[in-house]
Amino acid sequence: MVHYKLTYFLSRGLGDVSRQLFHLADVDFEDERLEKPHFLEKKETYPFKQVPVLSVDGFQIPQSMAIARYLAKKFGFAGKTAEESAMVDAFVDQFKDFYSEIRDYYYTMLGLGLTDLDGDEQKDKVLIPARDKFLPLLTRYLEKSKSGFLVDGGLTFADLIILDNMTSLLNWWPEYANDYPVILAWRDKVMNYPRLKEYIEKRPVTMY
Amino acid sequence: MVHYKLTYFLSRGLGDVSRQLFHLADVDFEDERLEKPHFLEKKETYPFKQVPVLSVDGFQIPQSMAIARYLAKKFGFAGKTAEESAMVDAFVDQFKDFYSEIRDYYYTMLGLGLTDLDGDEQKDKVLIPARDKFLPLLTRYLEKSKSGFLVDGGLTFADLIILDNMTSLLNWWPEYANDYPVILAWRDKVMNYPRLKEYIEKRPVTMY
Repeated sequence: MVHYKLTYFLSRGLGDVSRQLFHLADVDFEDERLEKPHFLEKKETYPFKQVPVLSVDGFQIPQSMAIARYLAKKFGFAGKTAEESAMVDAFVDQFKDFYSEIRDYYYTMLGLGLTDLDGDEQKDKVLIPARDKFLPLLTRYLEKSKSGFLVDGGLTFADLIILDNMTSLLNWWPEYANDYPVILAWRDKVMNYPRLKEYIEKRPVTMY
Repeated sequence: MVHYKLTYFLSRGLGDVSRQLFHLADVDFEDERLEKPHFLEKKETYPFKQVPVLSVDGFQIPQSMAIARYLAKKFGFAGKTAEESAMVDAFVDQFKDFYSEIRDYYYTMLGLGLTDLDGDEQKDKVLIPARDKFLPLLTRYLEKSKSGFLVDGGLTFADLIILDNMTSLLNWWPEYANDYPVILAWRDKVMNYPRLKEYIEKRPVTMY
């Protein structure tokens, strides 16, 4: 049997989507969660000197999206056809662009001293404009989806990545998606997906 | 026969890697290159209201990396095994992180009035620190690669994406990679790859 070890911080961050995929597929894995000093100690041993890292029988894969895509392909959450997989990848890349646009807000709200900016100011300056581009785009696809997920073939790692990040945004600003009913219904559907719901209920509660 | 149409601007930008993949695979495609007014006219018809867009018998795929991955998988430039494909994806995501880090420099150098920053200042502030993280990381992998490309199995779209972007950086700052001989040798190897070399020689010369 393949031995999987996923190494990340205690938080959900960019790593939890891969944990979610293991739980959805009911596949055992070692869930290694590092405190910061422990990470710093081991940092130089990781392929890109960062986490998450997935070890597959000792072969180390870095980068959160690459890990999630690898697992999603294995477990059937990466789209049903080549074209659908490409759309899944496109949503993930669009999310990465969104994440990059809101970086000043996100890094401020983490409260780790990564910026000296003001959260409320960054909310107006970067979060709201980025939201008002991203959520209408997702809404258009959800409205015509046959499955209620981003692509017709069912739940994929694109739904998971975007919505797990949204959990952090909602923790910081509960009204974040109030003007987007289709998004809220989609979120509800995913959060209640079999196996995922049980995992979410028992995972450690963290702000991000 | 599948009808492929790739729509992008005149420049290389984020679209040329997909053109390169068509040429490498010797597959015919419609190479639609838009001037800005033409793009603005058609913008609302594109899936994410942006280009590049790949149309596959009329099915539209947005997002540059998603398009490149789709073509690379079809044409055999996406890694030889599941684990190697994951590493290819990891390099691409690491490049996206690098690209995001150098954004202020890049957008300034485009000369399109997207920032009011100073290029020389941004070179020192964001480009050099990002380079000195990214190029040593790539060097480590290239030094142990059996193929001379980023992964052992041969040329992939990760090599193409990173190096085509580097062409722009070298246009703006010819000494960019002078302290990185392994990177320069890799670049030379890729630029001289059969079919790619011929394409590069005949493509329109643009700064980015």
